Amino acid sequence: MSYERIKAEELFDKVVNAEQAAQLFQHGMVVGASGFTKAGDSKVVLDALAKRAEKEELKVTLMTGASLGHDTDAKLTRAGALAKRMPFQVDRILREAINKGEVLFIDQHLSESAELLHNQCLPPVDIAVIEAAFIERDGSVVPTTSVGNSVTFLSLAKKIIIEINTKVPESIYGLHDIFQPENYPHRNVIPIVAPENRIGRRSIPVDINKIAAIVFTDIQDSPADIAPPDAKTTAIAQHLLRFFEDEVKKGHLTDRLLPLQAGIGKVANAVLSGFKDSNFYDLRMFSEVLQDSTFDLLDSGKMSFASASSITVSSECYDRVFSNLQRYKDRIVLRPQNISNTPGLIRRLGVIAINTAIEFDIYGNVNSTHIGGTNIMNGIGGSGDFARNAYLSIFVAQAASKDDNISHVLPMVSHVDHTEHDVDILVTDIGLADLRGLAPRERAQTIIDNCVHPDYREALQSYFDRAQALRGGHTPHILEEAFSWHTRFRETGSMK
Amino acid sequence: MSYERIKAEELFDKVVNAEQAAQLFQHGMVVGASGFTKAGDSKVVLDALAKRAEKEELKVTLMTGASLGHDTDAKLTRAGALAKRMPFQVDRILREAINKGEVLFIDQHLSESAELLHNQCLPPVDIAVIEAAFIERDGSVVPTTSVGNSVTFLSLAKKIIIEINTKVPESIYGLHDIFQPENYPHRNVIPIVAPENRIGRRSIPVDINKIAAIVFTDIQDSPADIAPPDAKTTAIAQHLLRFFEDEVKKGHLTDRLLPLQAGIGKVANAVLSGFKDSNFYDLRMFSEVLQDSTFDLLDSGKMSFASASSITVSSECYDRVFSNLQRYKDRIVLRPQNISNTPGLIRRLGVIAINTAIEFDIYGNVNSTHIGGTNIMNGIGGSGDFARNAYLSIFVAQAASKDDNISHVLPMVSHVDHTEHDVDILVTDIGLADLRGLAPRERAQTIIDNCVHPDYREALQSYFDRAQALRGGHTPHILEEAFSWHTRFRETGSMK
Ligand SMILES: CC(C)(COP(=O)(O)OP(=O)(O)OC[C@H]1O[C@@H](n2cnc3c(N)ncnc32)[C@H](O)[C@@H]1OP(=O)(O)O)[C@@H](O)C(=O)NCCC(=O)NCCS
Ligand SMILES: CC(C)(COP(=O)(O)OP(=O)(O)OC[C@H]1O[C@@H](n2cnc3c(N)ncnc32)[C@H](O)[C@@H]1OP(=O)(O)O)[C@@H](O)C(=O)NCCC(=O)NCCS
Repeated sequence: MSYERIKAEELFDKVVNAEQAAQLFQHGMVVGASGFTKAGDSKVVLDALAKRAEKEELKVTLMTGASLGHDTDAKLTRAGALAKRMPFQVDRILREAINKGEVLFIDQHLSESAELLHNQCLPPVDIAVIEAAFIERDGSVVPTTSVGNSVTFLSLAKKIIIEINTKVPESIYGLHDIFQPENYPHRNVIPIVAPENRIGRRSIPVDINKIAAIVFTDIQDSPADIAPPDAKTTAIAQHLLRFFEDEVKKGHLTDRLLPLQAGIGKVANAVLSGFKDSNFYDLRMFSEVLQDSTFDLLDSGKMSFASASSITVSSECYDRVFSNLQRYKDRIVLRPQNISNTPGLIRRLGVIAINTAIEFDIYGNVNSTHIGGTNIMNGIGGSGDFARNAYLSIFVAQAASKDDNISHVLPMVSHVDHTEHDVDILVTDIGLADLRGLAPRERAQTIIDNCVHPDYREALQSYFDRAQALRGGHTPHILEEAFSWHTRFRETGSMK
Repeated sequence: MSYERIKAEELFDKVVNAEQAAQLFQHGMVVGASGFTKAGDSKVVLDALAKRAEKEELKVTLMTGASLGHDTDAKLTRAGALAKRMPFQVDRILREAINKGEVLFIDQHLSESAELLHNQCLPPVDIAVIEAAFIERDGSVVPTTSVGNSVTFLSLAKKIIIEINTKVPESIYGLHDIFQPENYPHRNVIPIVAPENRIGRRSIPVDINKIAAIVFTDIQDSPADIAPPDAKTTAIAQHLLRFFEDEVKKGHLTDRLLPLQAGIGKVANAVLSGFKDSNFYDLRMFSEVLQDSTFDLLDSGKMSFASASSITVSSECYDRVFSNLQRYKDRIVLRPQNISNTPGLIRRLGVIAINTAIEFDIYGNVNSTHIGGTNIMNGIGGSGDFARNAYLSIFVAQAASKDDNISHVLPMVSHVDHTEHDVDILVTDIGLADLRGLAPRERAQTIIDNCVHPDYREALQSYFDRAQALRGGHTPHILEEAFSWHTRFRETGSMK
């Protein structure tokens, strides 16, 4: 085993295997685990927890940074190990259990989980399970491909389990910027005024006496599933790039734009990829996740710097990043998610936020999380942190899907994650609606004219016209009919 | 006339009467006017604009800080002078016109209007109309009882009209803290770490050459309508005070609490008044509006400092404030609304935010703005700025009203202003629901158990039970039935 990864010799006797470490868990505990968009998650200890839970009554509340890789959430769900889960997930099996009411899920703004813990608005963390590249002489921990909520979990947990992942080179040291705002009422300024500012330590401080177990692994992060650009995502990316070019022409932005945030998924990736062949330069990211497209832009010279809380890339890109770590280290930084996503910094930096909607309505309200108003998909993630505070808040979606049986532009969204107040620009493969400076009735006509799939345009216009005539109001709606498209889809499999 | 209020003699020849000043307006212009919750608004120039519009085609886009006093919005509406209005209003006549689609209204987060103007996301301001106590030698303007968006309007407008209000003593100088964040991409830290920090100038810088007219007035602000506490608002206040006491007992807060924000209306006033007889001390406010209750708390020694964007009080309290200005000046400050309401400061200071809901639903989504999903009441105001970023986000409402024909707790709100992510505590006269750390299904049961009027409890429980059984999901809903209470009220005048 790689004891050289433990610089504090007094910890050598804490080294155990995953099954032994998993003995520390008890029924009813609160566990805080590393992992953000599948990066830097626990590879073996949560897996061992699942195995234990298959055989005995052992349910925990699991908090993470965001989503986990390696089907860990599925394994934990199948084993009945999850009582409550927060703040985000993307797993099909877990999602089903949440929607059946078998696992309780709290869908949180990613900037807020750490706040809630520090403010004692959530139960205290019993055990932290944190992936690390190595442990420093004083017990401090150098994280791997994500920071997430690990700083908070390590500072608040009663006991700590460290998974040292020897697959991640020690040279990752220096990639992270570890800073935590002070607790209330002593909070001070977070002194970041540009994505490239480093304001903290390179490792996470840890009370060495709390380290109860150390486990070695050498398992790589689950790769990102990246769907290649298709006709629709390319169309969306093109609309958006043309919009940015126009904003530059109007003098609203320079060719450097402003720091970019891009949500998860193929559209975000397509948009970022689109910048490669554009005239924009010296771009910066202030985002949550660095995806393949970020490294392409860094390599092509289009992007100067990228700040986020995790690196979630394909296997091919993973190898590229780690064989060129020295080169990238000056140009990327990973931060705790209560820094990468904090409202004040997003507003201060003037971030351009691009996130994906499940559906949006004629007034520009966005649903990011629920199918049919009831079933959760993933969670709000950081979309609210960014959309509310961004210089420009952009949401993208395909106009229609499933053989065009679903329209993603609707009379009324079945669940609201982002209100019309927080949505500036909507883009589908059909076109782009610039909603800035428009009142609700103007927003509706602009969205109908620009974003709707042709099969649905007439019906949506009819709804809007009738709502104005029958009910009027600042935001005309016929409440009895507002969800009829969702109801029709449930009953007939089509919104048509 | 009081020319001594114009310290820059070269401006003497700009003095005109209101009718003459109003000749500067042209059809289609964008007007930015002072005024925030009826305080520090234009008393005569907008009135003269309304009179002109009665006789000729003269429609403008009117932006303000927030609401205006003196029925100015009603007069402008009746005269047909308003094409578009933003970001907030509380006027019955204007509201009716908005809901008929005769006036376009943009309902904005109060922190954002200035951002949108500086970022050129709204049309440029042609004329600023700003109430002032006096004009300094260099043309700088000392505002009166509100700051609102006046700094932005004065800096961006092509022409400026100043209304010098001689009713406001010159000794108001020093009450205001005038600071503006830099434009992108040059924005720096806003260096406030406590409500009492002063970081700016005492007057608003103005390009003296843009001052096109100066008008004298001596008309006092419209008084706040303060309904005395009644059984319901007292009950709500008591629930809330008991909750704060419990939080102190648990060690979550100290007796000093954290800076308070309280929305407009009688409940907010009742809650603040309740602090007078409590054990809390050294309280601070970081809010939008200072109401009568603020001055009562300052006088009783319970409150040490209050920061806001305006002072909106009863006539009696107005006299008290201005006869004791020196005494209060060290303990209150008025800021631009893009400082008083900026997300980063609200999060940094850990504000406890108390706002009023029109209705909320079993999952804790809040509607602050719309009646029956269509008709706007006032607007979101600052409630979103505070609720999203607060240490604790509290919404209050009566459980039922209009002879209990309206339940304010519903299966689904007809319009969402604040999503369940942003709502920690709900209080009605029936009781308080602490939603922290709860998943949606738990939230629903807690709300039903604690907040609902007895006449509606069974029906709401039935909806929730059937939604779980029939549809399940993370957020169980029967979409066809979700708005049936609103529909019943529309058809029968009662939700029963
Ligand atoms: C919104 C989000 C789910 C979109 O992801 P995506 O992969 O582009 O999603 P799609 O458009 O393919 O749609 C997701 C699914 O919902 C289905 N769906 C969408 N609207 C539907 C509707 N009205 N009724 C039924 N199904 C619907 C789609 O058909 C698709 O189903 P499938 O996976 O079975 O094919 C994803 O971006 C997300 O979770 N966002 C929230 C978090 C976030 O924004 N984070 C940003 C910072 S990381
Ligand atoms: C929400 C808000 C309107 C509540 O104000 P309030 O004076 O306490 O309001 P009430 O509870 O008395 O209700 C307002 C009206 O809506 C009516 N109403 C409420 N729910 C209704 C419903 N479901 N159907 C029909 N009418 C309804 C009430 O009966 C009342 O009507 P009335 O004025 O004709 O009597 C007000 O606080 C507001 O505008 N808030 C948004 C802005 C904000 O929060 N700012 C905070 C920072 S300043």
